Amino acid sequence: MAEIIPHWLSKQAFLAPNKPAIEQVDGTVITFLELKNRSQEFAQRLASYGIRKGSHVGILSNNNSSMIVAIHALSYLGAVAVLFNTRLTSDEINYQLHDAEVEVLITADDLLDSAKDLKVNIVKSFQEVEEESRQDIALLSEFDLDDPITIIYTSGTTGFPKGVIHTYGNHWWSAISSALNLGLSEKDKWLAVLPYFHVGGLSIFLKSVIYGMPVYIVEKFNEQVVLDAILNRGVTIASVVTVMMQRLINLLGENRFPGYFRCMLLGGGPAPKPLLEKANEKHIPVFQSYGMTETSSQIVTLSPSDALVKIGSAGKPLFPAQLRISGNVPNEIGEITVKGPMVTGGYYNNQKATKNAFKDGWLYTGDLGYVDEEGFLYVVDRRKDLIISGGENIYPSEIESVLSGFVGLQEVAVIGIEDKVWGQVPAAFVVVNEEAITKAAIIEYAKGKLAKYKLPKEIYFVSSLPRNASNKLVRSKLLDYIHR
Amino acid sequence: MAEIIPHWLSKQAFLAPNKPAIEQVDGTVITFLELKNRSQEFAQRLASYGIRKGSHVGILSNNNSSMIVAIHALSYLGAVAVLFNTRLTSDEINYQLHDAEVEVLITADDLLDSAKDLKVNIVKSFQEVEEESRQDIALLSEFDLDDPITIIYTSGTTGFPKGVIHTYGNHWWSAISSALNLGLSEKDKWLAVLPYFHVGGLSIFLKSVIYGMPVYIVEKFNEQVVLDAILNRGVTIASVVTVMMQRLINLLGENRFPGYFRCMLLGGGPAPKPLLEKANEKHIPVFQSYGMTETSSQIVTLSPSDALVKIGSAGKPLFPAQLRISGNVPNEIGEITVKGPMVTGGYYNNQKATKNAFKDGWLYTGDLGYVDEEGFLYVVDRRKDLIISGGENIYPSEIESVLSGFVGLQEVAVIGIEDKVWGQVPAAFVVVNEEAITKAAIIEYAKGKLAKYKLPKEIYFVSSLPRNASNKLVRSKLLDYIHR
Repeated sequence: MAEIIPHWLSKQAFLAPNKPAIEQVDGTVITFLELKNRSQEFAQRLASYGIRKGSHVGILSNNNSSMIVAIHALSYLGAVAVLFNTRLTSDEINYQLHDAEVEVLITADDLLDSAKDLKVNIVKSFQEVEEESRQDIALLSEFDLDDPITIIYTSGTTGFPKGVIHTYGNHWWSAISSALNLGLSEKDKWLAVLPYFHVGGLSIFLKSVIYGMPVYIVEKFNEQVVLDAILNRGVTIASVVTVMMQRLINLLGENRFPGYFRCMLLGGGPAPKPLLEKANEKHIPVFQSYGMTETSSQIVTLSPSDALVKIGSAGKPLFPAQLRISGNVPNEIGEITVKGPMVTGGYYNNQKATKNAFKDGWLYTGDLGYVDEEGFLYVVDRRKDLIISGGENIYPSEIESVLSGFVGLQEVAVIGIEDKVWGQVPAAFVVVNEEAITKAAIIEYAKGKLAKYKLPKEIYFVSSLPRNASNKLVRSKLLDYIHR
Repeated sequence: MAEIIPHWLSKQAFLAPNKPAIEQVDGTVITFLELKNRSQEFAQRLASYGIRKGSHVGILSNNNSSMIVAIHALSYLGAVAVLFNTRLTSDEINYQLHDAEVEVLITADDLLDSAKDLKVNIVKSFQEVEEESRQDIALLSEFDLDDPITIIYTSGTTGFPKGVIHTYGNHWWSAISSALNLGLSEKDKWLAVLPYFHVGGLSIFLKSVIYGMPVYIVEKFNEQVVLDAILNRGVTIASVVTVMMQRLINLLGENRFPGYFRCMLLGGGPAPKPLLEKANEKHIPVFQSYGMTETSSQIVTLSPSDALVKIGSAGKPLFPAQLRISGNVPNEIGEITVKGPMVTGGYYNNQKATKNAFKDGWLYTGDLGYVDEEGFLYVVDRRKDLIISGGENIYPSEIESVLSGFVGLQEVAVIGIEDKVWGQVPAAFVVVNEEAITKAAIIEYAKGKLAKYKLPKEIYFVSSLPRNASNKLVRSKLLDYIHR
């Protein structure tokens, strides 16, 4: 049965009108009632462009509160928000605009100029929308949880990106799953610094309206700003990726996180063990997690009680979710498959990709991992990142985890490079703090810790690693470093 | 789309195997893993009677842990548990057995003898089931949220009782709604003393497996035992009805509730204002609530931040729920209608009653109330309890609320009695602490507080008030007091 619930922002504005929904670095606050009013007014202005129930409307914006207002506004119209990664090229955006059948594109004010030439009929900036007159139209007062609210493209391991459709229900179940895992406190305030056009960032704002919880907005990652928010602004939960946590810990020095800070939710791939140990030393409550666009943010999380005994694990599947490793043998690596009401029903306009990814209600993630005897998931690698060397499987993350323990080595990434003898051999790309570090020293350090065939055959010293808009490592770009 | 989730007890046993699921007055503890194992074994024994997916199985038991095991066991078989009120007569139970098409009746050991003559093919006690051999059958590992799990009969305002069907989804949404309202803490422990065959008691055990929260079982209400649990056993939340709270406060004397006790969830009809004020004086965090079997426990609750400013209100509808008063004018009394995924889809085998109660997805509760300008619900009365006197509507609860402020008056109930002049006039039934209290004194006290037509025309001094199995006042039985 399709469940009907009241519009979540209207409902929260009714339950807690004066509670802060959004707090910004400059101290300004938007309450739930104000957020509702702004979103409803924005919806009435958006209606000027003929946007109605079922319309696909693109949003091209970096992190800011106007983007959140726009997403809620579209939900008042029953329209679907297609969120664009602002780092994409025009060609890439045009592909997605076409694929998602976007009718109108709304952009941040500073992105309007570059968006003018995109292949879409109507392009308007937030400011331009604000100048439209308000149409006298009916706004949605309730949702059918089976209706779509967002489409977000995944980078796609092969071929073209695919548009993941999220229903209201997918986001709802994701938020509830997280609450059942992390608990729910009146005092919570969640820091949002991950890109809001990715599901990890977006989901914070949907949790906010469902929980009645303030979000602390950080538009662009800066360790000073984030640390200040944690130390001085009452932030209790923050979603980050590994590199952010690394920088935060470096900046923290001998300082301590406040006692009320209860969760550093870590996504974006397996974290190196030495980093987790460092966080542990500093009493930072790190929750490793695993998820993807298709699962509407994390679907597996390491719970507080297990955080210290299962270091390196992504944890157990959230309450309403199920997890299976193809093969189904404890400790044996296979493809990670997941199932649950927060998992997308499929890709927009792409039956083939949907059919490939889903079997009997299970999503085949393309990621490799194993579960131990107690059911804890260890994500090993993206299947495509696997290095096969002389018939042996080598997981880049294992080598990265070891090398990152080397003092003075700031960041590291490992890929397979061609080798006439072995087919592939591992090569490491490292960013170092100290110039004196040598290849020999790093290899020597790794020797006792890694089997010989896992030792990097090459070590490239680079000034930074290629990362995407959500700060995730893009391994595929590392090869360019060698050949340029 | 029908959502699939893993079996909630199996899932919780996987997430938190060693956490207490049930704690008992004698100090014994059942962990989630033990509860799962016991329930699965019980299911395998129950299979001896041919119980399978879709079977209707009656449970006749007072509060105890075996009853909870039996309910979970039936869910492992996909069978539907029909819960019987143990205070019913044989005729009443036979009616429900027949109406619900019950195949097998499972009883508490001490109720087996009296159940032997009931009209059902198979009657077995918990003990007898335990002695069956375990069948080698497949147990459910997941639920379809649209599948039924329980049928509970409502006393029915007119005609025969009706069997309310609850799906897994109804109970799930009820639990989630409550968590969104009350928050969710690792430290929570919920006291269960309301009858488990009513939805208010049952729901605590389903919240338990969904939240991973211990339940403290009290088999029979006794203010000493309940107060001890709150003061010394780490109970943080308790579901009670008015009369229980009254007795607890009397016993409390000058003592204080511990700081960690965060919620006294008060159901079972409007509470008198003086009692709420007394609770407030003693810093007892009372959450007034409103709900019924059809809403799978409370659907409207007064949130902590509003508890003190809106005394006497039942609060606002829970997050996924909607509320409307027929007529839709603030402060004007009308029939309370509700909507939401925790609301039953209807009555078993009774299309007529279902059709009468539901219109366009809204449940017409038969209760009267109003909402103020801010949307807070005030439940006035059951429609059938309304007294119509000379064309004026008189709400018994209003008179009860006033009279209960009279010192020395312990309990009070008001009904309409026939009157040649006015059609009906109010009559009060009172239980007093002090023999010296007179009718004249009570009337005198009420005079300044109630309009003349609301003043009770008769006052009957009785030793106790008629209450049903969940300690709710049964106004219809008061007339018997006069005529006997």
